[in-house]
Amino acid sequence: MPSLIHHPLDPSSRLIRLMCAEYGVPLDMEEIKPWLRDAQLLEINPAATLPILIGEGDQPIVGILAAIHTVEDLYTPSVVAGLIPPDPGPRAEMWRLIEWVIVKLNDEVTRYVLEEKIVKRDQKGATPDPAVLRVAKANLNEHMLYFNWLFATRAWLGGDALTLADFALAAHLSTLDYLGDIDWGKAGETRDWYSRIKSRPAFRTLLNDRVVSMPPQKGYADLDF
Amino acid sequence: MPSLIHHPLDPSSRLIRLMCAEYGVPLDMEEIKPWLRDAQLLEINPAATLPILIGEGDQPIVGILAAIHTVEDLYTPSVVAGLIPPDPGPRAEMWRLIEWVIVKLNDEVTRYVLEEKIVKRDQKGATPDPAVLRVAKANLNEHMLYFNWLFATRAWLGGDALTLADFALAAHLSTLDYLGDIDWGKAGETRDWYSRIKSRPAFRTLLNDRVVSMPPQKGYADLDF
Repeated sequence: MPSLIHHPLDPSSRLIRLMCAEYGVPLDMEEIKPWLRDAQLLEINPAATLPILIGEGDQPIVGILAAIHTVEDLYTPSVVAGLIPPDPGPRAEMWRLIEWVIVKLNDEVTRYVLEEKIVKRDQKGATPDPAVLRVAKANLNEHMLYFNWLFATRAWLGGDALTLADFALAAHLSTLDYLGDIDWGKAGETRDWYSRIKSRPAFRTLLNDRVVSMPPQKGYADLDF
Repeated sequence: MPSLIHHPLDPSSRLIRLMCAEYGVPLDMEEIKPWLRDAQLLEINPAATLPILIGEGDQPIVGILAAIHTVEDLYTPSVVAGLIPPDPGPRAEMWRLIEWVIVKLNDEVTRYVLEEKIVKRDQKGATPDPAVLRVAKANLNEHMLYFNWLFATRAWLGGDALTLADFALAAHLSTLDYLGDIDWGKAGETRDWYSRIKSRPAFRTLLNDRVVSMPPQKGYADLDF
């Protein structure tokens, strides 16, 4: 069984967990805090990023792009519909939106929230900076308007079919939701979509996540949130 | 012929230009400044990122990940060795390093240099912030040490064979080199590698680039720099 070095609130780790759960690939989970820059982590990955996928006897698979391609190449069951569309047009749209989420949304929202609310808990005397969290919140509002606009005419993020782009967005929003940073009352079409994706069996693994001394917001694990 | 909406110093556009040149795919080039957030650009890509690849009669292909996969799927000539290794191990290593370059190196170095030296030229009264450029330079030194370390035991960035990861790094370093931000005297093994990749016919398109009223540093186009 492959193992995944991850952090429960790291959205890139969550994306691979969702992908593997959807494909029925069991994972041994090993939790670390990458921001502590443990020597053993740096030896495997000097960038100190997650996830890291360890196959059997293989070199470690480092990073979100390498992990996506490895899971897709080695672990996709041929009997179920995959998460990467076979046609070039929908596939390009999926990659556009994956990039939107893992680069732009991460850069403008998720990484600030994680830094202020999670990483700083391990820095003596540090407290979340309200000014940074306000900027992240304002940025998230803009992103949500765009996602609402897309979901007004699409069943799934990339179009008519569920793709890996949905899991990428769900990974980020579920991290933000755990930390109470999503105002679902204003989330419109994105809320309906999140409700559907949250009900998938693949999502269960994430809903049981708990970070020590930081419980999730009240509705985090509710399918009727 | 597909066309590419690009900026000459945008490293993601440069990566696709190198990839297409290596595969012998001619491109019609359309230059824009994405930071001006032209209405026509925002309609195609609300993220205002480059590159954007326009096929014949197709939807625009937006972003570096979508463009890489589209060129690989539609335009790879089957008669030459591709830039994406067929074996899972080397392929994962290639994606790890592409992510290193397009996310980490960009985030810590290239985007600061471009913002200060290029984007600010279009902002009335703005001048490059020396403090930001100092941080970018210090970060670049760290990256160069890592690349030197890799090239001490590898002919190419991902291993024994040229891959797309080499073009990703070359795209970023060539932008930084244009702007005079690379001290080749200290670049060690990375300089030898850059000399080799710069001599490839695919690289010629980049070496002729000129940005209005901002000529490249002296050795930019020299193969013997």
